[in-house]
Amino acid sequence: MQERLEAVKTMVAAALDEAIARLPRGELADAMRYATLGGKRVRAFLVMESARLNGVSDEAALPVAAAVEALHAYSLVHDDLPAMDDDDLRRGMPTVHIQWSEATAILAGDALQTLAFQLLTNEVIGSPEARVALIAEFARAVGAQGMVWGQALDIAAETAVEEPDVKQVTRIQEAKTGALIEFSAVAGAIIAGADPEPLRDYARNLGLAFQIADDILDVTGDEAATGKRVGKDEEAGKATFVSLLGLEGAQTKAGKLVHRAEAALEPYGEAAGNLRELARFVIERDT
Amino acid sequence: MQERLEAVKTMVAAALDEAIARLPRGELADAMRYATLGGKRVRAFLVMESARLNGVSDEAALPVAAAVEALHAYSLVHDDLPAMDDDDLRRGMPTVHIQWSEATAILAGDALQTLAFQLLTNEVIGSPEARVALIAEFARAVGAQGMVWGQALDIAAETAVEEPDVKQVTRIQEAKTGALIEFSAVAGAIIAGADPEPLRDYARNLGLAFQIADDILDVTGDEAATGKRVGKDEEAGKATFVSLLGLEGAQTKAGKLVHRAEAALEPYGEAAGNLRELARFVIERDT
Repeated sequence: MQERLEAVKTMVAAALDEAIARLPRGELADAMRYATLGGKRVRAFLVMESARLNGVSDEAALPVAAAVEALHAYSLVHDDLPAMDDDDLRRGMPTVHIQWSEATAILAGDALQTLAFQLLTNEVIGSPEARVALIAEFARAVGAQGMVWGQALDIAAETAVEEPDVKQVTRIQEAKTGALIEFSAVAGAIIAGADPEPLRDYARNLGLAFQIADDILDVTGDEAATGKRVGKDEEAGKATFVSLLGLEGAQTKAGKLVHRAEAALEPYGEAAGNLRELARFVIERDT
Repeated sequence: MQERLEAVKTMVAAALDEAIARLPRGELADAMRYATLGGKRVRAFLVMESARLNGVSDEAALPVAAAVEALHAYSLVHDDLPAMDDDDLRRGMPTVHIQWSEATAILAGDALQTLAFQLLTNEVIGSPEARVALIAEFARAVGAQGMVWGQALDIAAETAVEEPDVKQVTRIQEAKTGALIEFSAVAGAIIAGADPEPLRDYARNLGLAFQIADDILDVTGDEAATGKRVGKDEEAGKATFVSLLGLEGAQTKAGKLVHRAEAALEPYGEAAGNLRELARFVIERDT
């Protein structure tokens, strides 16, 4: 898996660089480029492996991988704003509004969302039918039915009188981070016109395990390794899988989800080795 | 024209309502609906007339008209934020961050951009080819090559040491408001696969006239009629077409642009009566 992940990182960085290089130069493009640097590229990896499993070439899948990373970068830039999570550190570097300004962070995020949709129109991806189907699924995943809705629920939960329970925290996660992970995992099937359900099942379990691992890292993680502030959720008294299930309970739950994710890959047999490894990596990582 | 404009307003309000009603209920959807209320609907009108002139039905064009208004609404919500233009009044009502919060305004804007792209995937619009072509043109118009770039240039100009000249203010306008107006005017031709150039020429002249008229209204306008603060640009010492050309100079320039816009409609003959009337309305309006 590591070799493929490194290859994906290189390809996606080049695709994002190329797309941003086509924009008018200036602070806006600089901030956009900065926001897309680094990251684990889990979403891009999912897109590329989903494509490979469905007989779609790397070349066709690459703009989609770049799109999900551009979209993810926009969501981080806006989430880090003072009016949102108010974070000054991301991937070990100052956040965009610290490096430039709040106005530039708002605009860079806005333009990264647009860029994500623009990348999905690239004709190398496939037929116009496939591209429109992708764009429609993408829009469902990242807007007021998906990611942005999850972020709104998350903010509402923080100010609610009653502490949310595991069911509610799960619902928030499924929207906030799960929907884009799910899109990434089914993208290859959509391009190929194949059945996306096994990959959808995989992604749902993987996404939840990923979030639980993030909550665990917020407690046990190392700031230098994760590149972001740790202990923030606890300080803020935020309900997380760790605060609700305890550290051990959260670890057990994440382990079960990873097993379910692996089981969902059954129809793909040996070919899905990288995705199986990713599922295990998600809960074993230290960043 | 007025009759058609009223019909467009009714149709677009219904289309936006319907799209937002499909979203999960809550503050986010409420803020999105609120942000799309009212407005002159000039962009929607351009879409619907562009469609009609190119033999595209109202039904097919309506999701596109709703998309440009959703996109425009998002841009206003983000422009009004404290870190941007810091406006508390819009269309005679408190701006979204005043009515709810900054976080809700950021998220509602983000989700309105997504909704705009989602609306463009609607199959009633036409073939997948037509929809992908529209989405690609839309992305070029509203991101870091168009609207968002214009907003970034506008902010940079405000803090620049040298006052921008007419050429620079024109360049900012062409990106900030011109690009979306141009998209709206050519949308019908793109759906029909017809030549968009006459409508593009019309829209470029119309868009600039529209901005000059806005600058004039900021000086001569009535707060109750415009529904926004007047005299704001002058207070902020901002370079506008009025500050650079004088009131009379700005009026003369707007008049010339309207004549050019009307001339561009020549190929459509009598059928373009509404668009000719719109061009004159743009500089004669008091709101």
